[in-house]
Amino acid sequence: MASNTFGKIFTLTTYGESHGESIGGIIDGCPAGIQLDFDKIHYELSRRKPGQSKLVTQRKETDEVQFLSGLLNGVTTGAPIGFRIQNIDAKPKDYDFNQEVYRPSHADFTYDKKYGIRDYRGGGRSSARETASWVVAGAIAKQVIASIRIHAFVSSVGEISIHKPYQELDFSLIEKHPTRCPDPITAEKIEAQIREVKKQGDTIGGTVTCVVQQVPLGLGEPVFEKLHAQLGKAMLSINAVKGFEYGSGFTGARMKGSEHNDIFTSQGRTLTNWSGGIQGGISNGMDIYFRVAFKPVATLMQSQPTLDMQGNLTTIHGQGRHDPCVVPRAVPIVEAMAALVLTDFYLLNKISQI
Amino acid sequence: MASNTFGKIFTLTTYGESHGESIGGIIDGCPAGIQLDFDKIHYELSRRKPGQSKLVTQRKETDEVQFLSGLLNGVTTGAPIGFRIQNIDAKPKDYDFNQEVYRPSHADFTYDKKYGIRDYRGGGRSSARETASWVVAGAIAKQVIASIRIHAFVSSVGEISIHKPYQELDFSLIEKHPTRCPDPITAEKIEAQIREVKKQGDTIGGTVTCVVQQVPLGLGEPVFEKLHAQLGKAMLSINAVKGFEYGSGFTGARMKGSEHNDIFTSQGRTLTNWSGGIQGGISNGMDIYFRVAFKPVATLMQSQPTLDMQGNLTTIHGQGRHDPCVVPRAVPIVEAMAALVLTDFYLLNKISQI
Amino acid sequence: MASNTFGKIFTLTTYGESHGESIGGIIDGCPAGIQLDFDKIHYELSRRKPGQSKLVTQRKETDEVQFLSGLLNGVTTGAPIGFRIQNIDAKPKDYDFNQEVYRPSHADFTYDKKYGIRDYRGGGRSSARETASWVVAGAIAKQVIASIRIHAFVSSVGEISIHKPYQELDFSLIEKHPTRCPDPITAEKIEAQIREVKKQGDTIGGTVTCVVQQVPLGLGEPVFEKLHAQLGKAMLSINAVKGFEYGSGFTGARMKGSEHNDIFTSQGRTLTNWSGGIQGGISNGMDIYFRVAFKPVATLMQSQPTLDMQGNLTTIHGQGRHDPCVVPRAVPIVEAMAALVLTDFYLLNKISQI
Amino acid sequence: MASNTFGKIFTLTTYGESHGESIGGIIDGCPAGIQLDFDKIHYELSRRKPGQSKLVTQRKETDEVQFLSGLLNGVTTGAPIGFRIQNIDAKPKDYDFNQEVYRPSHADFTYDKKYGIRDYRGGGRSSARETASWVVAGAIAKQVIASIRIHAFVSSVGEISIHKPYQELDFSLIEKHPTRCPDPITAEKIEAQIREVKKQGDTIGGTVTCVVQQVPLGLGEPVFEKLHAQLGKAMLSINAVKGFEYGSGFTGARMKGSEHNDIFTSQGRTLTNWSGGIQGGISNGMDIYFRVAFKPVATLMQSQPTLDMQGNLTTIHGQGRHDPCVVPRAVPIVEAMAALVLTDFYLLNKISQI
Repeated sequence: MASNTFGKIFTLTTYGESHGESIGGIIDGCPAGIQLDFDKIHYELSRRKPGQSKLVTQRKETDEVQFLSGLLNGVTTGAPIGFRIQNIDAKPKDYDFNQEVYRPSHADFTYDKKYGIRDYRGGGRSSARETASWVVAGAIAKQVIASIRIHAFVSSVGEISIHKPYQELDFSLIEKHPTRCPDPITAEKIEAQIREVKKQGDTIGGTVTCVVQQVPLGLGEPVFEKLHAQLGKAMLSINAVKGFEYGSGFTGARMKGSEHNDIFTSQGRTLTNWSGGIQGGISNGMDIYFRVAFKPVATLMQSQPTLDMQGNLTTIHGQGRHDPCVVPRAVPIVEAMAALVLTDFYLLNKISQI
Repeated sequence: MASNTFGKIFTLTTYGESHGESIGGIIDGCPAGIQLDFDKIHYELSRRKPGQSKLVTQRKETDEVQFLSGLLNGVTTGAPIGFRIQNIDAKPKDYDFNQEVYRPSHADFTYDKKYGIRDYRGGGRSSARETASWVVAGAIAKQVIASIRIHAFVSSVGEISIHKPYQELDFSLIEKHPTRCPDPITAEKIEAQIREVKKQGDTIGGTVTCVVQQVPLGLGEPVFEKLHAQLGKAMLSINAVKGFEYGSGFTGARMKGSEHNDIFTSQGRTLTNWSGGIQGGISNGMDIYFRVAFKPVATLMQSQPTLDMQGNLTTIHGQGRHDPCVVPRAVPIVEAMAALVLTDFYLLNKISQI
Repeated sequence: MASNTFGKIFTLTTYGESHGESIGGIIDGCPAGIQLDFDKIHYELSRRKPGQSKLVTQRKETDEVQFLSGLLNGVTTGAPIGFRIQNIDAKPKDYDFNQEVYRPSHADFTYDKKYGIRDYRGGGRSSARETASWVVAGAIAKQVIASIRIHAFVSSVGEISIHKPYQELDFSLIEKHPTRCPDPITAEKIEAQIREVKKQGDTIGGTVTCVVQQVPLGLGEPVFEKLHAQLGKAMLSINAVKGFEYGSGFTGARMKGSEHNDIFTSQGRTLTNWSGGIQGGISNGMDIYFRVAFKPVATLMQSQPTLDMQGNLTTIHGQGRHDPCVVPRAVPIVEAMAALVLTDFYLLNKISQI
Repeated sequence: MASNTFGKIFTLTTYGESHGESIGGIIDGCPAGIQLDFDKIHYELSRRKPGQSKLVTQRKETDEVQFLSGLLNGVTTGAPIGFRIQNIDAKPKDYDFNQEVYRPSHADFTYDKKYGIRDYRGGGRSSARETASWVVAGAIAKQVIASIRIHAFVSSVGEISIHKPYQELDFSLIEKHPTRCPDPITAEKIEAQIREVKKQGDTIGGTVTCVVQQVPLGLGEPVFEKLHAQLGKAMLSINAVKGFEYGSGFTGARMKGSEHNDIFTSQGRTLTNWSGGIQGGISNGMDIYFRVAFKPVATLMQSQPTLDMQGNLTTIHGQGRHDPCVVPRAVPIVEAMAALVLTDFYLLNKISQI
């Protein structure tokens, strides 16, 4: 089924495999008249791309996005915005070993069973390379909802996590450290942790927290397009994500109502914000914050037993150039998907009343 | 925007407020030729309805569903299935106090700001009464995918939780205890906990775990209709849900790849199942399991400060008949939403190859 | 597949068969804050209902619509508007003969082959009774776009047709004659023609013309949601419709560009309007006009050879109470579907620029 | 709004302007496992492209389509199929005169008013160049529904038309004549007619008839996705189309039921086929046939009065390279859009029953 489109009104439709000619997409429903800042788009792509630091994969993807339509002198015209990112550094040969083998905890097996065929080169369609297109669209979405501020950051890796409320963090530090953890001491520990697992040929999971500020009241469309439900779907669409919580999240499940209720101030704001900025699926003007859990990368630089397409048990040893920990590079992806959701609901909310 | 439809192919569109004439919906896209078992539908509704036990609200909703179309002698005809559930025990007068006041951590404030008008009676459209319609549709969905087994249960309330893997639980005990917790000792503790908070006029949160067995390989449609992403959205659509995790979930974010990878057996199954039965967004034939966090009910039988529509601070004291803990009644709702998602993907997967 | 929803943002989802308990639907995406005039809704229903005059079927359907949700004191709340119309005068026994027989040029055969089952009573889901729900939704849509004027009328029956441009007609005469033809002399001829075919137990086709005035500039969303393409789909969804043309229509296919081009005035209007008020799929502020062809009703009060479900040739003789000519009653249906399309695009156009 | 996607399950999303870098699209929902014949795709493109004969525009568009994803060794993988066609022969300078002027009966004025900005080069997004992408997708769709035969042809130009039922035509002659009219004598007359209007710097309208054979029973999804309604929408999406009729069409509106009803044979076929192969919105296994009206091309090689963006009346004289009559090149576009509709319903019908 057609399943490569995200959004209702402001939509992204994508194509492309990790080692094909290019990846790319079509952004449809972008309002006309927006002067795009292309530096901002390239900046977001540079945050996602491999090879930024020693902590992440050393694949080199130049990740130059080329816009194909929908713009006149850099201004959106209301027509669909086509774009593509060529796969320059694709080394499909690196993946020949992969053709006959199902890598553990990857999508090789399920794609093969579902479709009867799979593009085995670098994960094909299931590769996280796809998310570069999401970042492009998100970078445009951010410019549609320019007054809304979206800050994602690494809040934990393995057992190491920030132990402060986000209000005590300085978001300007996020980009200052290769881990994208804005708490300097935790950042150092996380960096050491990632270096350690990398040395072992292992990988490790982590969480990304996202805080959205200056959100207008009224975003979200109950009952089946609640703001947090669509944010959850967006985050769970990102490769390796295993969980999503917003506001009090799983902690809220341990609380009593008398602790959890957010008491109003006379300005219509709330003293606490366990609600996470969303009540009944609609933004209430307070900060939206949520947390996303990423599993450890499945490709290990270690030998693992596995299965081949003929049903024989065999051994696999990771090759290619992979991340020991995905969360630093996931930060701009989380922001991009949040921006897509918020832009859609921002536009939709303009017709809640007439 | 039209936002009251769930699903792509097998869809549910709903209407209705807590204290209107009725709630109900239209199930569209149900394949023709299915002989419905109406007892099963009524059974699911009876699991959700108020007044089942001392642990839940004592509102009496007879919750008789009336089918209006789409059936001939109880067999689906391919036409849309209209249904309605009358609001028999509606006592709108109970909610008159609510007209001028925004209850803390409810949707009163956000609905009012978004729409400029709200149906204040019992929460109106934002009431969890809506989920009775979801249970009807889910009970039909279960009959479309009759070989798939869906078992949800209460896995924690407040600080009390089951400390066993689900494989050690006897699902036949779920319905034997008013808490819907299948671990007898934990169930007793949970019951005591709920009684305690109720006595205090307070409420408490909890989690529901859902296990789906006998799932065919191949359900889920990457990249934006991944099985777990849609399950997540479905769960996050349920009132009071704050978080969703599947497979290893947030625990996975603390693990290493060498621990987390699920090694294949020669039968194409896996020795562990941290993946939660889904890889790359597609079911792999193993059990799907996920966990849903519910916040404590916001209506307290205590006085709380709050805001009225004129912007004055005031005091509110819960009235009406409310649940001290929502999770026992949430169990059939979680199952229903899971059934809707699985049915949609089950049908869609029939055209992945031709 | 789910196929009983019309529209993108302002949507109508319907259920119901001709002789079931009721028909009805859910209108979703209606902006909040609109004070509905229910008399106008009932008026539109009364225009569609059987038994209005000797020219149409004598079935009595009281066609009382009951609203179930989405309103507070008659004002839309932004929640879905559920409604139902009970099937009071249903006489399913009239249709028992129909159970085993496929009526010529009806949908009996195709429904049976597609679904393997069909509701044979009065055409079941394929009955034009369904359109009563469309008229309800259209009557609400008209109130959303209150400044736009939609006038449909009968422009021909059989070989008799109006030979004037619509600008020379007095639309206030439409409702003054049972044929809904606003040209008095033509109306008389049409009435005589319908009486004649009725006497013969025969039926006859006709056309409805629709003129939409005071249309804002900018409605329609290229390239696959062009205003005229969606109007065409809406009209072709109406039972018995075989063709649609707008502006110059099929006549335009015989013209030269030098005749057909609409020359601008300095006010941005055009001297002629062969474009029919739509250029490039977007309204240009001129009148929109289109014409819809209806085939003759397939149910005859005559004997016809036909086929039964066992594959035997047999004879059928129409029973029940049917229209000799459908176009007088089709007029409000055409208007309703036009209103649904225009409302959807009216709302969507609010977010073309921000 | 996102409006550049066609279809429900098998979808085409497009981007691109006439004189941008490229046009192209993403085909999503194509079943896996289909070995594509690329020659057939290029053949269809060559039928649409300019410069084929003296009768059509002499623009040279090489129209080489490049596939970017979704294929492994030419076999569909179930992943989205991205493609692009570079705009090689774009001469944007030809259109500089157009920047300040609204051409009569083009989309310049409406795009400008709707979006506040327009890509003036060669019509930008409103150019029929867009349809090259439709032909690519249609050529793939044809391979999904390989047993269904789709034949479109020119049935009239101006006042000249074929006066035979389609059953008497030899479809193998369609491609033998530059007019794509399969009736040799009419073809000659049409050719002479087109040459004549071209000499005058004028243009002329025409009709395309399409016949679909070997259609399986059961395609189409009532009530709002009727097969003919979606075919109508597809055709009305094509540039310059003003009307659509199927089966008896507008002629049916002049007939009596006793003439129009299609009497069954004992094989479940019908003696006549006024229904046009569709009853109640569902294919009945008989030939589907429909007719599409195209207006004359609006760009004339003559002087015409018009309006500029400042509201001044001015004069325009067509430049660039344009078709004097669009219908010969419209034939493959009509077929492509028909193929998209049929493929979508073909796939959907696989889940009508389970």
